[in-house]
Order: sequence, then structure tokens, then C-alpha cells
Amino acid sequence: MNIECPAPRHEDERVLLGHGAGGRLTAELLDTLVLPALEGQPGPLEDAALLPGHPDLVMSTDSFVVSPLFFPGGDIGSLAVHGTVNDLAMRGAQPLALSVALIVEEGLPLSELHSVLRSLGKAARAAGVPVVTGDTKVVGRGAADKIFINTTGVGRLDKALRPSAALARPGDTILLSGPVALHGTAVLSTREGLGFDSEIASDSRPLHRIVRALAPLGPDVHTLRDPTRGGLAAALNEIARDASVALEIEEGAVPVPVPVASACDLLGLDPLTVANEGCLVAFVSPAAALDALAAMRSVPEGADAVRIGEVLPAGPAGRVLLRTLVGARRVLDMPLGEQLPRIC
Amino acid sequence: MNIECPAPRHEDERVLLGHGAGGRLTAELLDTLVLPALEGQPGPLEDAALLPGHPDLVMSTDSFVVSPLFFPGGDIGSLAVHGTVNDLAMRGAQPLALSVALIVEEGLPLSELHSVLRSLGKAARAAGVPVVTGDTKVVGRGAADKIFINTTGVGRLDKALRPSAALARPGDTILLSGPVALHGTAVLSTREGLGFDSEIASDSRPLHRIVRALAPLGPDVHTLRDPTRGGLAAALNEIARDASVALEIEEGAVPVPVPVASACDLLGLDPLTVANEGCLVAFVSPAAALDALAAMRSVPEGADAVRIGEVLPAGPAGRVLLRTLVGARRVLDMPLGEQLPRIC
Repeated sequence: MNIECPAPRHEDERVLLGHGAGGRLTAELLDTLVLPALEGQPGPLEDAALLPGHPDLVMSTDSFVVSPLFFPGGDIGSLAVHGTVNDLAMRGAQPLALSVALIVEEGLPLSELHSVLRSLGKAARAAGVPVVTGDTKVVGRGAADKIFINTTGVGRLDKALRPSAALARPGDTILLSGPVALHGTAVLSTREGLGFDSEIASDSRPLHRIVRALAPLGPDVHTLRDPTRGGLAAALNEIARDASVALEIEEGAVPVPVPVASACDLLGLDPLTVANEGCLVAFVSPAAALDALAAMRSVPEGADAVRIGEVLPAGPAGRVLLRTLVGARRVLDMPLGEQLPRIC
Repeated sequence: MNIECPAPRHEDERVLLGHGAGGRLTAELLDTLVLPALEGQPGPLEDAALLPGHPDLVMSTDSFVVSPLFFPGGDIGSLAVHGTVNDLAMRGAQPLALSVALIVEEGLPLSELHSVLRSLGKAARAAGVPVVTGDTKVVGRGAADKIFINTTGVGRLDKALRPSAALARPGDTILLSGPVALHGTAVLSTREGLGFDSEIASDSRPLHRIVRALAPLGPDVHTLRDPTRGGLAAALNEIARDASVALEIEEGAVPVPVPVASACDLLGLDPLTVANEGCLVAFVSPAAALDALAAMRSVPEGADAVRIGEVLPAGPAGRVLLRTLVGARRVLDMPLGEQLPRIC
């Protein structure tokens, strides 16, 4: 019972914003501190985990701290539903039930709480998932920033689908369900008053129907991942690492809407590292690629699905290569830390 | 899909600390705002809810915002495990899996995060429940107070037990598993530097083994409830309301440790409204009362179990009466709002 857990290396080490950004610092915090303390052994804590004794059920949790609460294309309420529905979906599961836990700052106008909850309820009904239980905590002024929402979901696995980051294989075709970097740039533009928010709306949406459409392809669907914090770059690097493969992405094939590209240019951001909340990457057998693309496009959420690259037949494990617009190849690295705090 | 949800009555209404205290204000917020927004119909959002399509499984969520993080008898890490294990147990379930979601303030010493997580991991192992999935968010300095933890649990129902607040019946014997008001006074004493903390330790502990010990009594166990926020007074009032019965409690039978009584005297608190994190009330058939008491006392967590009262054969529905030490009867009301903010 008394499992050794390494103490922080320096007594004065502190939590940084980057520890929550989904990049290398997050991975380091998880591997060196969180996982040893919780379970006694390092290893990936999955976005959605199998329930012991119930091999058809998965569970996933996510806390939402986005600032501002309301942004073009969504708000913290709808985002809290989509985020957890999508984490379940990336394991190949359809959502069965959600819990909702609120931490509210004293003094928040009830009208704002009301708007957030109404949006949350509407998003849950639209996704077809009931909110079965909840919790509300209030903390004093200044002890939280307006409202934080945790949603935890239980999902039922589709029998035919068992996608996992570790299952990506040499030769796989890499598909992307829609344009990238909309969520991060929409939130940032609203927060900083940059004025892009009339042109850019978050892609926040549930992805479980795309996954359901892919289900008939069964084991030909190797890997599903929604590129949230850390963007497409983080998601692809995680898959390349977990599957010990090398990937090549065609930069020109990744859809980046023009206003998003302009906003990223201005802000010095790489759209491939900006968070998304409504697209997914799918790694599929090359023989099934056309069928998979058609399946994704058969639902509105996947109407803009495209092929963006492939898993190389050989190459350094864990490497993500980008074939640029001018035909050069460069390494697409794992983002280090926090570019855009409180984006979800 | 477009369910009507009443707007706040006054535009300038704001969230109060009392809205999160587990008393009348919390009930009002849930009934008038949260539940209509989420589900379109008012009604109790259970502490632990059945999973659709899986009648043997329940789900429960709780966010922990206790301040300070460390107190005699526990810390936010162990509390986060016990709180959710106990919510599952009050439905008659044994814990199957936990998720853990952290919201951490930038600048928190890694050593404190490490202590909290180590304690959380130890409490989970001691309760026999695996942490299967997690999430970590970091917010800027001043946007949260150190660390908030959400735990969500899935539990498996014991076949024989189906306790519910609505099932308390006239004639039932009311049992209490241990002394009250330890948790609230321990946290308050530590926070305010009152010096009681050498004598008072939180009762934070898992209660699922008491419930397992009661399982052989099956349907004779009508109601289980752990009196957390709002204390014994809130728990009893909720049961009296949900079961439409009147209760009578012997004040002299409710164990209040001497240092707790002294602290409450000094602070002007009623120990019956102070939060607990390691005791439960059980409403059982009178014929099974002695067996239930013996079962509770058979596990260390229930060693101090006592009979504290009964459900009256008749009486005003929803009424909780207290027979005082001098033999008088007074009404024990539902606490209104916040006595002790951020106690859990």
C-alpha cells in the first residue's frame, strides 16, 4: 500500500501555466508526479478509461475553465458537454450519461449562471446524453474566476470499434474531419478584444456521430483523437509516440480558414498548435480510407473531412514530419507549454 | 428540445455563498435554475444516480474546494476520495472506479500538489477503488485558490440494498454511525487558528464498509444518508421531506465530543448543522434495528454507532423534532445558508 512516489526535485518548484497546456510540461507533470502518486506506476492516463468489470463501458472526466465564459460559437456550458462527449467518442464510445459539477464564484450574476446552464442543457439534449447527477459549490469572491465546470461521462463502446493511439500502423491514411484552430483563435480574439470574433467562431461540437458513422468500418479504424489543447501538433505527436511510428502530414492539405490564418499570423501562433473542440483525426487502413472519408462526410459535423497525410512505411518512431507548401520537410514538434491559457 | 427555463427574478440577483451550503438556498437554486435548465423539470438531482441501461450501476460527482488544503484528520486529497465513495455508498453501492480532475492555481508549490495527490492515492487504495482517468487544468494566479478537485465515481449496487430518502417509514429506527460535527469544526479551527485543532480531527473516512455490513439486512434498510454540508439537521430534514414523515431525535443520544461542543459554543454554531465527512444515518425497520446496530459496530468506521431517534407513527410531513436534554420538544429546522464556507 505504501507506494514510493518521487518528491519534486526542488523544494521551490511551482506549478506553471504550461503544466496544464497539454504539451511536454503536462506530460512531465503527469509522469513524474500525478501518476506515481495515484497509482504507483507511470503510464498514460487515458482520456477515457475502461470501467473495471464492465468491458463495454468507458469513463472520462474534464474540467472547463475557459475565459471568457461566452465566445463566438459557444460558451463554457456547451463546451463542457462537447469536451466530454468527444473524449468518450475518441475511444469509440457513444455517451450514456453525464455528471455536471459547478464551482461558482460568489457574486456571479444569476443571469450568467442561467445562460451557461441553459446552454449546457441544450447541448446535452442535442447530443442525446442525459445529465444524471450534479454538484454545486460556491467559493468566495476572488477564490475562483466566475465559474468552472467539471463534466464526467460514461459511454458505451461500439462493439466493432476499439481505436487506440497505440494502434496506428505504417501505411495508415490520416483523415481530419474539419478545419483547425477555430476554437483557440475565437476564444483568444474575444478575450483580448482583437476583433476577429465577427469572422471566427469556435468549432465546439459533439463528434460522436462521426464516430458512429465510422463504426461499420470496425477494425480498419485504428486511431481517433480530437486535437484539443496543444492542437493538431500535440495530437499527432502523441499518436506517433504511442504507436512508435513516423507520420507525414501535407501542410497544404490541413484546412486553415483564412481569418484564422490571419489571426495566427498577427499573434505569432502556429495554427497547428492551436486548440480545437470540434474536429478529429482518424488513422485508418489505406484500403478503407475512401469509405472512411465518405462516412465522415455523411454527417454534418464531418462535411469538410479531408485526407491530410499518412503513417510512413518506415521512419524514426515518434517523429511527425510536415511536408510544407514549398515541398520541404520539417519536424512538427510537440508544443512545449502554454500558448493560450484557459482555452477550454 | 427547446425547454422553457425561468430566468432569475431580478436581473441583479447574484450567487451567494449560501447557494452552495447545502441548505434552503441551495435547494432553491437547484429547483428554480439548475434543474429546469438541465432537464426541463424540477425534482431532486440525486447524490448518486442510476446509469441509464445499467440498473446495477450508479454515478456520483463532487467538487472539493476545502480551505485550508490540509487539516487535522485529512486533506483535500483524502476528502475527495471519501466524499464520492460515500455518496455512492448512500445509494447502497460499492465503489468501482473514480475519476479525478484537478484545477490548480499557477504558483502552487509542486510539493503541496504532491502531498495532496499522494494522500488521494493512498485514500483510494485504502478504499479499494482505482483512479481510472483524470484531467489537469492550470489557471493563472488569483483565478483559483490553490487547488480544487473533482472526483466522480461509478459504483455497483448491492443487489439486496435499495436505500432511498423517500423510503423512510413511520416506526423506523434512526441510527447514527458515529459522533457529529468533527469535520466542520476541525477545518474551521485550522482555518481561523482557533487552537482546537490539537483536540479535534475531521471524521473524513469511507463509509462503504458500513454499508456492506448492512447489506444482509436488505430491504429492512430503508434510508442511508451521510450528513455533510448542513450537517445532521439538513440530512434529517431532507429525509423527512422526501419521505413525507415526521422524525423525532433525542438530543442527548447524538454523540457530540466535548471539544467539539466547546468549539461550537464559542463559535455560536449548532453541532447538528456542522458538516460531517465520515458518519451516516440509517433508517431501518424497528425489527431489524438491533441487527443493524450490531452490523454497523462490526466495522471500525461504525464502532460508535448509536440509536438517535425514530420516525413518528404520525405527525406533520417534513417535520424534524428534537427532544432536548430537559425533555422539551423543539423543531430542528433546515439550515438556511452558509455557516461554514468551503468546508468540503
